[in-house]
Amino acid sequence: MRVLGIDPGYAIVGYGVLDYNSSKFKVLDFGAVKTKAGESFPCRLQHIFESLIKVIDLWQPEVMAIEKVFHNTNAKTVMDVSQARGVIILAAQVKGLDIVEYTPLQVKQSVVGYGRADKKQVQEMTRIILKLNEVPKPDDTADALALAICHAHSSSASQLIQRASRMSL
Amino acid sequence: MRVLGIDPGYAIVGYGVLDYNSSKFKVLDFGAVKTKAGESFPCRLQHIFESLIKVIDLWQPEVMAIEKVFHNTNAKTVMDVSQARGVIILAAQVKGLDIVEYTPLQVKQSVVGYGRADKKQVQEMTRIILKLNEVPKPDDTADALALAICHAHSSSASQLIQRASRMSL
Repeated sequence: MRVLGIDPGYAIVGYGVLDYNSSKFKVLDFGAVKTKAGESFPCRLQHIFESLIKVIDLWQPEVMAIEKVFHNTNAKTVMDVSQARGVIILAAQVKGLDIVEYTPLQVKQSVVGYGRADKKQVQEMTRIILKLNEVPKPDDTADALALAICHAHSSSASQLIQRASRMSL
Repeated sequence: MRVLGIDPGYAIVGYGVLDYNSSKFKVLDFGAVKTKAGESFPCRLQHIFESLIKVIDLWQPEVMAIEKVFHNTNAKTVMDVSQARGVIILAAQVKGLDIVEYTPLQVKQSVVGYGRADKKQVQEMTRIILKLNEVPKPDDTADALALAICHAHSSSASQLIQRASRMSL
């Protein structure tokens, strides 16, 4: 299974591409799409869209795992992140990827094992799981890889459950 | 000047295309892009994007006037409308349109003449200004036409001011 993890934003979009087969991860690519504060907002949206289309064309992932946005911060920021998120989802949709959303709580539980893990613990576990020498920078990139791990874990768990339920029939 | 007015949304996107020359309006097209609640959200975004690209290709407007989204209603709705709005802005951006935002207050002041006008007054003035027999339905379509009128008025006002300041040099 090839997964594209996305930490959405309008200034920085973190992304990570992983293969997950037979319970083993292989890191293919990770990075961040950055847009300049001096650019117009429509230009920033276009830059994000076109950059993600390139990543998808290059790696051909089957699924995009993207973080859910919450409304507990600045309302203007939430609206701008949501506008960027719409464009990111559109990029995956026009390229035929499945799109799955995860909450930060789901990511923490999946990567660290408990929902109260802090950001640094999630990043360190992401590094260990993916056998990387360092935590990828910026944080958005590490978060994107954690999202991809979360999807790999949860979809393989649901496959196991499906297999078990078929066996019990 | 050819203006595309947009009332953004994810279930209904109202649009209206107007020409405004020598203080006269000509209505070219208006309608609503509707998406089904049963469709996935990514499908709805794609439907909105592709439908607006078609409207832009057909009428070749120079500018898109789009309503600003406010955060005084349901937070989930605001996030979903913002995601759709990102996709709408992207459609205009990739087609090279200028993109201008107006608040509901600006639209009311421009179309009716005062900011406390109610929705029905704005719609009725829109009908009168554009010499239409009936207020276009759904409301989102009438609102989109009001946005286009607002842009036509405000840009012609700013042109007048520019001309006056050039004359006084």
